[in-house]
Amino acid sequence: MKRPLILVTNDDGMFAPGIKALVSIARNFGEVVVVAPNSPQSGKGHAITIEEPIRLHRVTVFDDIVAYECSGTPVDCVKLAKNVLLKDRQIDLCVSGINHGSNASINIIYSGTMSAAMEAALEGVDSVGFSLMNYSFDADFEPSKKYIAHIIESVLNEGINDCNLLNVNIPDLPSKELKGIRICRQAQGKWDEEFKEGIDPRGQKYYWLTGKFYLDDERPDTDISALNDGYIAVVPSHHDLTAQAALSSNPHLIA
Amino acid sequence: MKRPLILVTNDDGMFAPGIKALVSIARNFGEVVVVAPNSPQSGKGHAITIEEPIRLHRVTVFDDIVAYECSGTPVDCVKLAKNVLLKDRQIDLCVSGINHGSNASINIIYSGTMSAAMEAALEGVDSVGFSLMNYSFDADFEPSKKYIAHIIESVLNEGINDCNLLNVNIPDLPSKELKGIRICRQAQGKWDEEFKEGIDPRGQKYYWLTGKFYLDDERPDTDISALNDGYIAVVPSHHDLTAQAALSSNPHLIA
Repeated sequence: MKRPLILVTNDDGMFAPGIKALVSIARNFGEVVVVAPNSPQSGKGHAITIEEPIRLHRVTVFDDIVAYECSGTPVDCVKLAKNVLLKDRQIDLCVSGINHGSNASINIIYSGTMSAAMEAALEGVDSVGFSLMNYSFDADFEPSKKYIAHIIESVLNEGINDCNLLNVNIPDLPSKELKGIRICRQAQGKWDEEFKEGIDPRGQKYYWLTGKFYLDDERPDTDISALNDGYIAVVPSHHDLTAQAALSSNPHLIA
Repeated sequence: MKRPLILVTNDDGMFAPGIKALVSIARNFGEVVVVAPNSPQSGKGHAITIEEPIRLHRVTVFDDIVAYECSGTPVDCVKLAKNVLLKDRQIDLCVSGINHGSNASINIIYSGTMSAAMEAALEGVDSVGFSLMNYSFDADFEPSKKYIAHIIESVLNEGINDCNLLNVNIPDLPSKELKGIRICRQAQGKWDEEFKEGIDPRGQKYYWLTGKFYLDDERPDTDISALNDGYIAVVPSHHDLTAQAALSSNPHLIA
């Protein structure tokens, strides 16, 4: 049987421990090709590069694994992988991450990790974004590995029904406290922004984005609930933003 | 009665004819404040700026209208407007655009215009993104103005039911051929990318993103169908990406 072709990407760049962990898992299930940004791209959402050219450079990072650095966004990485580097081949799975930090709830729309995964899904490739709820370089990815392996194997063997994109968030817990996997919905939440105001060395004012996450959802079946309960949260996701209920309830807008 | 406070933004920058047209309409319905990017931000999706500071500069562009240029993305513009410039006031409506070019179908997820509108919606502000299907600087916004005015007035007076975000796309047609407004769903479509490969003056290879839109949806109730029929397409939208049908159909993922 032909080995599956697995595209690995992320938004933290090629030297983040998270992508190294993901490559080490994915390579057990198929042929891995890595295309990742050459600079940190957290918070880039679904940005694409259209006003300037993009560069691709072959690099040696993960032993014998074929890997390219890309000067663009995470979405650019996937577009270049699909349409240039691997254009004559079928990609069987795209995995993105492991992100350093949560992409649960509303974070999915700001996340470069999830936008890369969504772009692959748009291209018809089953796709999974993985995030560990620990921002630090020293985050411990070991406890999550067997679950990530299970998800990769399940998707390769049985696919994803009724969508082709999964947003997987993993609590930052030791192995014995990780309770398993729960399939759940995106929690309603938002960021309460605060901008740190400062004066730069030239005397000019600047603003620097900061803030904290605010949950506005007590439903028991959300990703945040699962994470709080010690479960890995898997949200089956798609790119149709239509608010179904609102289709018939706004006749006043018609003219 | 207090005049409504209307935030105007876009992704094409302060000097795009589209935002000028939008300001000229919005000012008839309330007090307008403009916060727009200081450079073209098309295709920036829901990107936010976290790795560097953001600048805001007061500018005189639209006669007596208060306006600020922002060095960040369209989403940054909205965050700064809501949390810094207008933090002690209630924004009654956010309008984004008028974008030069379509944001129908899948374009909503790449669009800076729509991401700005979605950010305001996330902050609890009724929000509408407007796009005219003509990319050129000389696009004629006149025929669309009475419909945009109607939508702004309707949302200010009656709100939006069951969501707080509208994606409005306008066919590039003369007044007598514009048939009216249709409320519809996001069409399934995608971009077939092609990367133009070239060699730069230093002899290095580059890739430049291009491509064409490919529609994979024959349903009569989509935004693309409405536009093809000569109607202005209004898609009520939200930020919940959960694929509902997939919540119960993927037990193999659980471990």
